[in-house]
Amino acid sequence: MNNLEFKKKIVDSWFSYLQQQICKEFEMIEKDKKKFKRRDWYKNNIKDGGGTSYLLSDGSVFEKVGVNKSTVTGVFKKEFRSKIFGAKKKGNYWASGISVVAHMRNPKIPAIHFNTRFIVTSKEWFGGGMDVTPSYQDKKEKQFVHNQLRKICKQNSKNYLSFSKWCDKYFYLPHRKEARGIGGIFFDYQTKNWIKNFKFVRELGFEFINISKKLIQKKSKLKWTKKDKEKQLLKRGRYVEFNLLYDRGTKFGLNTGGNTESILMSLPPQAKWK
Amino acid sequence: MNNLEFKKKIVDSWFSYLQQQICKEFEMIEKDKKKFKRRDWYKNNIKDGGGTSYLLSDGSVFEKVGVNKSTVTGVFKKEFRSKIFGAKKKGNYWASGISVVAHMRNPKIPAIHFNTRFIVTSKEWFGGGMDVTPSYQDKKEKQFVHNQLRKICKQNSKNYLSFSKWCDKYFYLPHRKEARGIGGIFFDYQTKNWIKNFKFVRELGFEFINISKKLIQKKSKLKWTKKDKEKQLLKRGRYVEFNLLYDRGTKFGLNTGGNTESILMSLPPQAKWK
Repeated sequence: MNNLEFKKKIVDSWFSYLQQQICKEFEMIEKDKKKFKRRDWYKNNIKDGGGTSYLLSDGSVFEKVGVNKSTVTGVFKKEFRSKIFGAKKKGNYWASGISVVAHMRNPKIPAIHFNTRFIVTSKEWFGGGMDVTPSYQDKKEKQFVHNQLRKICKQNSKNYLSFSKWCDKYFYLPHRKEARGIGGIFFDYQTKNWIKNFKFVRELGFEFINISKKLIQKKSKLKWTKKDKEKQLLKRGRYVEFNLLYDRGTKFGLNTGGNTESILMSLPPQAKWK
Repeated sequence: MNNLEFKKKIVDSWFSYLQQQICKEFEMIEKDKKKFKRRDWYKNNIKDGGGTSYLLSDGSVFEKVGVNKSTVTGVFKKEFRSKIFGAKKKGNYWASGISVVAHMRNPKIPAIHFNTRFIVTSKEWFGGGMDVTPSYQDKKEKQFVHNQLRKICKQNSKNYLSFSKWCDKYFYLPHRKEARGIGGIFFDYQTKNWIKNFKFVRELGFEFINISKKLIQKKSKLKWTKKDKEKQLLKRGRYVEFNLLYDRGTKFGLNTGGNTESILMSLPPQAKWK
């Protein structure tokens, strides 16, 4: 096995492991009353891979949370290639990643998104991020999230400030002139020093679990009103707009024969528009 | 005033008139208890026009209905021009149109969409259509809608079959392998015989009012369950997916500095995803 094939195996195995950990931790938050449902899917050509989706719906804490992991290969369509790093000449790709979106029942707890991925074209790189979308503003909560992410970046010699700005720029709705949420970090094209990048991606995975647990613990006992819920449902409308109009992951998935149900698992259980 | 400027004036005035008629008829359906709220908007450069939106929310029949009319001019961005009929060489456009989306409270009444427009680039043409999206199947209702549209096409020497197929092709969600609804008609690029095309567009406007009233009258007294509503909300999720992922009108609007609130008025008041 050459070096690259070895990396692919390790990364794929890590994402699967992290998926199990996340599901285990989230089920504990639900006090083991609600369990994730597992669904496996394959690309049309089964040799091109597929993924495993875990969905927990209608929990007491999680109104809906999807934990998706997929590992796929294929060839980008010609019109798509110029937009992909390292795919201009040849369209071949290999991609593995994990992606989580949690929509909470209690509108005082923010929605949380996390994703990490390893992609191979003629280049190979890590990308990912996590960001938080409250419908209820809380300065301390925002500070906490950003402090945690700053720490994890610093520990891994990553530029928190640039990753945080990248996040703000990425999760922005130009047609609304609104940010999707309160930010977090977003990064892509991490090509140098595979060992260190992989370590960063692993630690971010654990930190996502840690942050999620803390945000939930702090607020899950808080009372909320119909008005709070209404505000959350309108905020979720924006979430839907972002994911369907702009999100690169959604476009990548739908354009490369990914599994629609898994790709759109990020959509909230319910949303409203005025 | 030259011929083209004259046509623009007439068309613009027709769309405004039709908008008033639709609002009046829909308010009568609401027994004058709920009224439309009017909002005017202008493009950044006020000389480039704007529009008028009428929104009725939270009615007893209409959970949400938006009736939008706009008349705008501008220059298409370069990357956008090759996709627009008659805009390859010069990007200038003038466009006027009316668009209605009605989301009903009673899940047994389908959502109804209607739109007609007159667009001028180096070409000039009419386009439009109407289609119906039930969450509750009713063969007779489908037949009724298609029969009415067939008649109106026949009266105006328009090819119902081809317009109906165009509609099915347009309102299709490839990622779900699902139709948005039960079809209707869709047409574009009607360049020949301006007088006849304009007549067709006018008659379709009145027919839209007629069909809407009939569909509502037939079902507004029908009882519905929570389960029926649930089904409607899931169907509306598909509506959102279509409008944000594929709809050309939405893309045109957001890409040409249209008014976001008016463009996204087509989104349902609430929707769900599993």
